[in-house]
Amino acid sequence: MTSTRCAVCKYFRRRCPPECIFAPYFPADNPQKFAYVHRFYGASNISKMLEELPVHLRANAIESLCYEAKCRMQDPVYGCVRIISSLHQELHIAQSQLAKTQAEIALLNACVGVVEPTPSSSESLVQQNGIDHGLDNASEFWFY
Amino acid sequence: MTSTRCAVCKYFRRRCPPECIFAPYFPADNPQKFAYVHRFYGASNISKMLEELPVHLRANAIESLCYEAKCRMQDPVYGCVRIISSLHQELHIAQSQLAKTQAEIALLNACVGVVEPTPSSSESLVQQNGIDHGLDNASEFWFY
Repeated sequence: MTSTRCAVCKYFRRRCPPECIFAPYFPADNPQKFAYVHRFYGASNISKMLEELPVHLRANAIESLCYEAKCRMQDPVYGCVRIISSLHQELHIAQSQLAKTQAEIALLNACVGVVEPTPSSSESLVQQNGIDHGLDNASEFWFY
Repeated sequence: MTSTRCAVCKYFRRRCPPECIFAPYFPADNPQKFAYVHRFYGASNISKMLEELPVHLRANAIESLCYEAKCRMQDPVYGCVRIISSLHQELHIAQSQLAKTQAEIALLNACVGVVEPTPSSSESLVQQNGIDHGLDNASEFWFY
């Protein structure tokens, strides 16, 4: 039954059991997907990670692991941490520029005799968008 | 010579050789650091990754792996990909709000008789900040 083996069982040249934990996420026609994650995590660790998750969350876990593995292939030193660092910088620039334009609006409002800023510019980005990405400690090491 | 073993050799209860590849990055007094990366990558894969890098880049590679491993501990489904997704959303909000405030400035400038926007608001964020984080494909799966 060689043709029905998943990419993982095919890689290890073993029989693919009916309840193979890898089969739903690593189809035989995409061996590269397994090659990426196997290179960095190893099949045994991936299996352990899957076993610790409920079935409905496993596909997303595999996709995120594949994404991280691809990043590590492209950037063996920083992996996807470089993307996090870039996005932090980009966000920092956007927020600084937003603060600058908000100050400009306040000045222009004063010129046209409107003391209060308009609603869309009066709320700060921090107030409007308080997403917590838990990077406080990481930023000490990686960002800025 | 038990007291001079690195955290990895201590974990595997083996002698720490003078040129141990792990020793500079996993001191014995911080066994947790190795525990994080060992859980997801395994010592063998970490060793392979280190061997493929020049010595001066290895410390940064280990720090980024530790960071990814900590994220995976906290979020076993998405790991640090969740942070990338959050930062993308945050950046999208900031850029939208910036575009809105720039439009406001244009309107106010027209009111006070200044047709051209001021230099700080006339350049778009995209023009000023073209950091390429190679997320085009990833965003199809993970963002928005």
